[in-house]
Amino acid sequence: MTKTTNPAHEVVAGNGLLHRRLFLTQGAAVVGGGLSLLAAQPVDAEPLAVPPWMKAPGTHMSAYGSPSKYEAATQRFVGGTPNVVGSGVSFTPHHKLHGTITPNSLHFERHHSGVPDIDPAAHKLLIHGAVRRSLTFTVDSLLRYPTVTRIQFLECAGNSGGNLSPMPPQAPCGMIHGLMSCSEWTGVPLALLLEEAGVEKGNEWVLAEGADAAAMSRSVPLKKLMDDAMIALYQNGERLRPENGYPMRLFLPGYEGNMNVKWLRRLKVVNAPTMTRDETSHYTDVLLNGKALILTYPMEVKSVITSPSTGLALKGAGVYEVTGLAWSGLGKIRRVEVSADGGKTWGQAALNEPVLSKSFTRFRMAWHWSGGPATLMSRAIDETGAVQPTRASFIVERGERQNYHNNSIQAWAVAASGEVSNVYA
Amino acid sequence: MTKTTNPAHEVVAGNGLLHRRLFLTQGAAVVGGGLSLLAAQPVDAEPLAVPPWMKAPGTHMSAYGSPSKYEAATQRFVGGTPNVVGSGVSFTPHHKLHGTITPNSLHFERHHSGVPDIDPAAHKLLIHGAVRRSLTFTVDSLLRYPTVTRIQFLECAGNSGGNLSPMPPQAPCGMIHGLMSCSEWTGVPLALLLEEAGVEKGNEWVLAEGADAAAMSRSVPLKKLMDDAMIALYQNGERLRPENGYPMRLFLPGYEGNMNVKWLRRLKVVNAPTMTRDETSHYTDVLLNGKALILTYPMEVKSVITSPSTGLALKGAGVYEVTGLAWSGLGKIRRVEVSADGGKTWGQAALNEPVLSKSFTRFRMAWHWSGGPATLMSRAIDETGAVQPTRASFIVERGERQNYHNNSIQAWAVAASGEVSNVYA
Repeated sequence: MTKTTNPAHEVVAGNGLLHRRLFLTQGAAVVGGGLSLLAAQPVDAEPLAVPPWMKAPGTHMSAYGSPSKYEAATQRFVGGTPNVVGSGVSFTPHHKLHGTITPNSLHFERHHSGVPDIDPAAHKLLIHGAVRRSLTFTVDSLLRYPTVTRIQFLECAGNSGGNLSPMPPQAPCGMIHGLMSCSEWTGVPLALLLEEAGVEKGNEWVLAEGADAAAMSRSVPLKKLMDDAMIALYQNGERLRPENGYPMRLFLPGYEGNMNVKWLRRLKVVNAPTMTRDETSHYTDVLLNGKALILTYPMEVKSVITSPSTGLALKGAGVYEVTGLAWSGLGKIRRVEVSADGGKTWGQAALNEPVLSKSFTRFRMAWHWSGGPATLMSRAIDETGAVQPTRASFIVERGERQNYHNNSIQAWAVAASGEVSNVYA
Repeated sequence: MTKTTNPAHEVVAGNGLLHRRLFLTQGAAVVGGGLSLLAAQPVDAEPLAVPPWMKAPGTHMSAYGSPSKYEAATQRFVGGTPNVVGSGVSFTPHHKLHGTITPNSLHFERHHSGVPDIDPAAHKLLIHGAVRRSLTFTVDSLLRYPTVTRIQFLECAGNSGGNLSPMPPQAPCGMIHGLMSCSEWTGVPLALLLEEAGVEKGNEWVLAEGADAAAMSRSVPLKKLMDDAMIALYQNGERLRPENGYPMRLFLPGYEGNMNVKWLRRLKVVNAPTMTRDETSHYTDVLLNGKALILTYPMEVKSVITSPSTGLALKGAGVYEVTGLAWSGLGKIRRVEVSADGGKTWGQAALNEPVLSKSFTRFRMAWHWSGGPATLMSRAIDETGAVQPTRASFIVERGERQNYHNNSIQAWAVAASGEVSNVYA
């Protein structure tokens, strides 16, 4: 444990975790008092030398900007399925990002038959089945409706599945946990459109079908559609990207990614789940007894430390920010706890405001790394009181054959060298 | 006035403005009861024909995505200064966007000598002047510090200046009001770094200098830097874009854009404003008496209707969503009011949650357009009680020679044809 003379530096858990008030006050609490961040270099000479880029004018304004060439390595990890055109995933590189918004160009992908090239003027959405009148909506007609805007996450049911394999994958954080992203979504509340069509009583399910070559289809409870679902038209301010369902997708806050049907073309009101291929052969949760759970929708409470994480080495003992993301498909994050001693003791992290429902919450914890071995973990608790499980308890409950809904705790081991690796702790 | 039989359709102001509860409840309140949104088309036949993009697999995942080719017209309007390399502006096309986040590729630009091509490994930030010890920070050293994340707007002091010309410009909304954008910024609180350097008492100003060829420089009150300022490193999750100051910029929530010095290389603590070129020859507010205000920082309460707006024609009488953005450099938006009769009567708009400080707030108002001429206006009130002024009162107070800080009310005239034009009302 570290001794400090500043009360703001109170150690709250083993192996150097400091009280979150360090991040709740600005400035004064952090430096001085026997513990310094000092990552800066004191200098004697001034001013700075004039760099080459100050000696001639730079480039012009642009119509649609791009990242710096020095950030070209900040990309999605693309993984295709052999011999299946357009099927596969790409992962958001969370270990290179910060904050809570995922840029559209880096939002994760999961396609079953590639990204269709849809002419928005020719695309239609049909609402039919057990309704008083069938209706079709063009993009232009949907743009006439009242809209709603919300910042919410989307997570593939298969996210973090790699951590259920026998040996912990030594991959960057984004390659393990990158099948999740968070955007500001704007669209039309489904309730408006279903009211207009007029759902006939006794029909509590809706088949949602996409306009890709896989005709990706899922059954959605009517109750969810009437609650907080939307037809998303805009993502982070601009129109949806093709890989996220352009020109329109179903958005079901907190529900597994696959149900948020992209390139949405059809909603059929029916009286029972339709048992589509995509909810029977895929996206079911195989249990210990060989049976399988189907229609398991909400993504449960979860968190992951994005820094430090695999591949991001610490540079010497001192104070570090341990930071990551927490989210729950059931509501707001209530608390995130961090451990530096492999789960023996836990300290409470600071949560970035505003804490929004079914959205990423960025958490931060001050950590005084002594330079010795440490195991970092985070554990989220949501507003329903649900606590993120350990990997061991998740496997006891769900079995090792489970591929989906792995919301168990991630552990990162920090070696004395500062190198970080993925461990099962 | 429109008669309806549904209490949710209460008319709250002249020319068809409806109570905001239409947007606070979902579904049921809007349709039925004698007033329908019906922009959809009833159909008899089903199912939909199979479009060509469902008949063959689509394209693969991508490492860094792009918008649909059908959205290629969603671009910044680029305006250069003749014969001055790299000097000019580009505008965010707000009439084509929705929600509150501006995508990084469409964030407005204002450069005085182009966009420098900075190697982040060679860039340094020097803090010097009246400090106990001068310090330099590399990008890597700053990434060690605790961070903060906030969604906040940035607005150029010259935004909306076109509406001070004698005739109202007939340009899209984004070309008049597009020198403002809103992002999720993540960076290091300035207070931490200044505490570490140790400011010597009696020095209440800081010179901030950029590493562009113009060495853009402004004087900033120390008090602001110790309050909510940050060195921004990430914008909407990814590292800053070159045109927004890569690898680091000063971010001063609510202050005029020009002070948020991009490509920040130097902060010098001093005892008085340094009267740089950029705060004497530019960015001063010429008054009626020929004198000028200098060091006028906060961008005051303002709003603009983004839809309907110039170039977006209405397609026949019926219910429309009137929507736009409101913001204030002094805090949160308390209320937005909308008028459809040129300011004679006003109704209260619904505000999208969460309403954040010094951030864009999206407002929405239900409007039953009768098909006759109408003049739409919005008026924002912030938490300090400040009310957005009319254009006439702004000119009476500041004069017509004013170029900066125009926060007056925008009026859009809707003709019987549905065409929208910019008017001074």
